[in-house]
Amino acid sequence: MAYDVVDLIRSKRDGGRLADGEIDWVIDAYTRGAVADEQMSALLMAILFRGMAPGELDRWTAAMIASGERLELGDVGRPTADKHSTGGVGDKITLPLAPLVAACGAAVPQLSGRGLGHTGGTLDKLESIPGWRAALSRAEFTAQLRDVGAVVCAAGESLAPADRKLYALRDVTGTVESIPLIASSIMSKKIAEGAQALVLDVKVGSGAFMKDAAAARELAETMVALGTAHGMRTVALLTAMDTPLGLTAGNALEVAESVEVLAGGGPADVVELTLALAAEMLAAAGLSDVDPAAALKDGRAMDVWRRMIRAQGGDPDAALPTAREVHVVGAPATGVLTRLDAYGVGVATWRLGAGRARKEDAVSAAAGVVLHAKPGEKVAAGAPLLELHADDPGRFERALAALDGAVEIADTSPAAAPLVLDRVG
Amino acid sequence: MAYDVVDLIRSKRDGGRLADGEIDWVIDAYTRGAVADEQMSALLMAILFRGMAPGELDRWTAAMIASGERLELGDVGRPTADKHSTGGVGDKITLPLAPLVAACGAAVPQLSGRGLGHTGGTLDKLESIPGWRAALSRAEFTAQLRDVGAVVCAAGESLAPADRKLYALRDVTGTVESIPLIASSIMSKKIAEGAQALVLDVKVGSGAFMKDAAAARELAETMVALGTAHGMRTVALLTAMDTPLGLTAGNALEVAESVEVLAGGGPADVVELTLALAAEMLAAAGLSDVDPAAALKDGRAMDVWRRMIRAQGGDPDAALPTAREVHVVGAPATGVLTRLDAYGVGVATWRLGAGRARKEDAVSAAAGVVLHAKPGEKVAAGAPLLELHADDPGRFERALAALDGAVEIADTSPAAAPLVLDRVG
Repeated sequence: MAYDVVDLIRSKRDGGRLADGEIDWVIDAYTRGAVADEQMSALLMAILFRGMAPGELDRWTAAMIASGERLELGDVGRPTADKHSTGGVGDKITLPLAPLVAACGAAVPQLSGRGLGHTGGTLDKLESIPGWRAALSRAEFTAQLRDVGAVVCAAGESLAPADRKLYALRDVTGTVESIPLIASSIMSKKIAEGAQALVLDVKVGSGAFMKDAAAARELAETMVALGTAHGMRTVALLTAMDTPLGLTAGNALEVAESVEVLAGGGPADVVELTLALAAEMLAAAGLSDVDPAAALKDGRAMDVWRRMIRAQGGDPDAALPTAREVHVVGAPATGVLTRLDAYGVGVATWRLGAGRARKEDAVSAAAGVVLHAKPGEKVAAGAPLLELHADDPGRFERALAALDGAVEIADTSPAAAPLVLDRVG
Repeated sequence: MAYDVVDLIRSKRDGGRLADGEIDWVIDAYTRGAVADEQMSALLMAILFRGMAPGELDRWTAAMIASGERLELGDVGRPTADKHSTGGVGDKITLPLAPLVAACGAAVPQLSGRGLGHTGGTLDKLESIPGWRAALSRAEFTAQLRDVGAVVCAAGESLAPADRKLYALRDVTGTVESIPLIASSIMSKKIAEGAQALVLDVKVGSGAFMKDAAAARELAETMVALGTAHGMRTVALLTAMDTPLGLTAGNALEVAESVEVLAGGGPADVVELTLALAAEMLAAAGLSDVDPAAALKDGRAMDVWRRMIRAQGGDPDAALPTAREVHVVGAPATGVLTRLDAYGVGVATWRLGAGRARKEDAVSAAAGVVLHAKPGEKVAAGAPLLELHADDPGRFERALAALDGAVEIADTSPAAAPLVLDRVG
């Protein structure tokens, strides 16, 4: 049956609910080019204002999944569990997490994207490892998932092509900030990837896409409901993103920090979040009796990491790229560091060359920021507080400007803030 | 200065007010093609939800006017007054009104459009007169305005080109029904036409674009404020459009009825509205001491009509086209006609061939509907109530379907409903 797209836009605009057939038709017609960009952008803006009922959003997401292929991971011989983070500064958690969960008996198929804006991309981080490649064939992907238990690679063009087109349109039409549209974009890809379980890390705070806890919770609840409706065991953690995760932001810098965590060390917050997400993934995969902390301590997670990197052509023993120039920023006063703003550090990292402004841009493997202290720790005036790493010293000035106002030092300690704020699911 | 269109869309979406420079830039950039259709449609949908502040809408309208030419009518030697109707069924008022007002001493420059949907277009009506042509050069237009005092012709491409592009976009993106967008579309063209005074006939009821009196009043107030802000003396009448105006709907049928009015006869409601609008136009033009009823009675308006038709190549004495087929519909019962629905008659007229579905379509000059009674009048079962006129009898069935439920007959008279509901300005 054919529908009239203008009637459909008017119906949503006036607060109506799109019928199942209308949703199937409009997503398919848009993907094929039979509904024009200017019509879809008007519909997206109407959805932004009116929202979507739960069943309506389920169907919208299902139609996006149906625009492409849905992977079948039944033949990998163990339960599958995936993770998705809404993005934060210094968020390298996938790097230790995927091999850790695989070491505990689940298979982790992680189809990732590249970074855009002030948050980094997992593929960009791994590409700082000499030889490592993000593109795998379907056969390589399945074989590695079966043999190693963990794959982090580029998502192909075949999953949810409707989302790719919608995402690009939303980006240029001011229709990004809609919870149903964000949720369906993330979940259509994750459901199409075919894992049995999914753990969502929904970031809240200055360095996150969601600055506001209520909106982050609504997004988490919406995504958990969508995953569940599509037969995927789905849980979300709401986690703090006011300060960077760990002590590094930047591609090779974050790989090195991840390897420290896999070696049983590393910053406490990275370890804490890695273990919290691992426990959720294992529980969702039916492996709640396995202790991920033990697998991190005894080297089993590191073994899987090395095999995972090697399977994709990387050399886990190769030296990582380092920056030609390092600029040290001293603490402006003596006292307790009370704030080190994630957004400021994220933008500085980006401006140093670690991130891209347009998706065609290349990124620097070595650029980034290293922290010498985290909020709650004492600092002395003039002692190193931050290091800026870049290949081109001409980048320091604009990176420093991004850090203006990002640091606060006081006489007394701030109240300790939890990292995992809540759990939804 | 260049602006970021996504920032601008987000600002309006989030309830902000667009700055003057932003408005000037986005209208110009869209007209030039530098802002894409999908971006403008998202902005239009955001405006539909958020509205526009009065000063913001003034500037938006000014930017639309500035996208093209603004006529200068200073050299016609008398005050200029224009009229615009938001469109109704059987609304032939421009035809007697323009020569009447010219006969009273004002000049009436009427740049008109063609009909689309269930309401007819003034140019389509006049084109049923043998020889009459709608397209005039600028020199012909000015000369006729000076010599005859009244011109009804096609609006050129040079007035408010931004509106032409925006109107076409709104039509396919579900963004028509926004009072600021409707008001700026109408008023940008009317202000660009350069008349000193403007009287708006804002229709309310089943056959009107605005079904609802509150919305019609808001549109009237918005347009009056816009005209006034641009230095045009502007007044609006809110008039009833629940039943067709007069006893005819259709191109040649309405010309014939207009000539009856100009000859001193014609249906009471057409005469009443013509005189009411003429009085407003004359008052707005500074000619409030002239009595239009006298000019209608003594033949001066008819004289101007004949000169106006001749000046554009038409023969005012030529026989008008008549339909090859007439289907008579009898009254279904004896009693008082309490309702004869304007929308039903409008759609029937359209389906008989008098209107077009797409702007490329040709219209039939002869097709239309003739009423034998108006609400409040007695009818006898089986006696003629309506005539359907068409060249092709195959059209009667679908026209009759449009009239299903359009007629109501009762034992007692309805309360007399006023034609002019209110005045704004």
